[in-house]
Amino acid sequence: MSNKGKIYVIGVGPGDPELMTIKAVNILKRVPILCFPKGKEEGSSVAMSIVSGLVSLEGKEIVEVYFPMKKIYKDRVASDLETSWEDTVKTILDKISKGMDIAFPTIGDPVLYSTFFYLYDTLLSIEPAIKVNLIPGVSAISASASAARIPLCLGAERMAVIPAAYEEERLRDTLIKFDTIVLMKVNKVLDSVLLLLDELDLTDHTIVVEMAGMKNERVIKEIRSLTGQRLHYFSTMIVKKKKMGKKASGKKIGITSHSRISQLTR
Amino acid sequence: MSNKGKIYVIGVGPGDPELMTIKAVNILKRVPILCFPKGKEEGSSVAMSIVSGLVSLEGKEIVEVYFPMKKIYKDRVASDLETSWEDTVKTILDKISKGMDIAFPTIGDPVLYSTFFYLYDTLLSIEPAIKVNLIPGVSAISASASAARIPLCLGAERMAVIPAAYEEERLRDTLIKFDTIVLMKVNKVLDSVLLLLDELDLTDHTIVVEMAGMKNERVIKEIRSLTGQRLHYFSTMIVKKKKMGKKASGKKIGITSHSRISQLTR
Repeated sequence: MSNKGKIYVIGVGPGDPELMTIKAVNILKRVPILCFPKGKEEGSSVAMSIVSGLVSLEGKEIVEVYFPMKKIYKDRVASDLETSWEDTVKTILDKISKGMDIAFPTIGDPVLYSTFFYLYDTLLSIEPAIKVNLIPGVSAISASASAARIPLCLGAERMAVIPAAYEEERLRDTLIKFDTIVLMKVNKVLDSVLLLLDELDLTDHTIVVEMAGMKNERVIKEIRSLTGQRLHYFSTMIVKKKKMGKKASGKKIGITSHSRISQLTR
Repeated sequence: MSNKGKIYVIGVGPGDPELMTIKAVNILKRVPILCFPKGKEEGSSVAMSIVSGLVSLEGKEIVEVYFPMKKIYKDRVASDLETSWEDTVKTILDKISKGMDIAFPTIGDPVLYSTFFYLYDTLLSIEPAIKVNLIPGVSAISASASAARIPLCLGAERMAVIPAAYEEERLRDTLIKFDTIVLMKVNKVLDSVLLLLDELDLTDHTIVVEMAGMKNERVIKEIRSLTGQRLHYFSTMIVKKKKMGKKASGKKIGITSHSRISQLTR
């Protein structure tokens, strides 16, 4: 084992190359082989452009791994893609058996919704003893809240993070019960979410950040203006019940709607 | 306004100085005044030691701000402390009015449970037009999951983040309904949480990471061994229902207990 190469999964942050960690940059400079996800969504080229903003790719071997993002999303992977993965995995295992280190740059933070873990699953199924080194990064969620200059959570506040696949009743329940609710990739379901927020009196407590940490970053504080609009794939919505600059008041947001729902369901 | 100094609130990551971002290090090197929180908890010296791991503090002015963490936690601030804050705020406003930049290094990520925002509240109440620049950082949550080599969320998984103040019924509800549950600073309520996890059949799906991203980092995968033990203040518990390396099965964890509870409450 000790002669083997190492596998690094490296969070490269949301977009601005300077939001990479020192550790990420040091490893990326050193490692001779970089694997980038290649998918239909816009994630692939982004990871590479973030890395190349501070690390020269010259002389490095670039391996592109096709991740069928939408299919993975539904937890089903077509078998031909699985075969393509296994080929990639064999290539990777071959490289590390020769003592070469490999890095997988991942947009944002590798532990939050990174497709790498599907590949890791295949790696583990072939070689159960394999270990990867995860280098945490700045998430799009953090970058979004920072861009909007709001804290996600303070004190005893509770936060829920929900990806784009919303079931309305569960989303409603979460919006009522949590202090902060983060909706990832909200572009897919924007209009229905806007309606729900309005119903729950949360519109004025909600912001949207498009392309957080990227050049075209946009913070939208008047979310009413978004009805019928198209947002970028990298869009995060943050519902934060307690606003900055205001002392705690007796009024609890969402409670009225909650009671209404309780009455309806009884 | 244009002659004024800038205020930076900078996430310096969980502990390892190399987990600071390039942006954080660049700003910290440049800014002449650094404010560190000074509290009874162990956060204060940690932030300073992270920064000084890569940035020389020589020649910089160090301002220590006393944050009464426990009192803030309960959303009550004793008035003498508020006075001490206002003094600090006046010092800060005076510095920036002279065109000096100030940075507030913050452990982890500034948008997650950072006490800076309480100070920001006071800043805003004195000078509503003031703007701060938030530099997102790597959170202890990310570092914990990375250390344990597990994804927090994949695909359509939903995550809840809950700080140490747990109401048992709400915690139970969250443990049942979410795919991933992160309990911050779990040291305070460890034994009761262990009992609850056992009841919900989640013990084998739970890990604890103590001092994530720090020198004495410890990943505890057999959490039964923790009963009656004391954990460090920087301890994060991650409950992840779907394990790596296993295909989706029909069995849904927690559902049995859910039904049991429904029966009890009807």
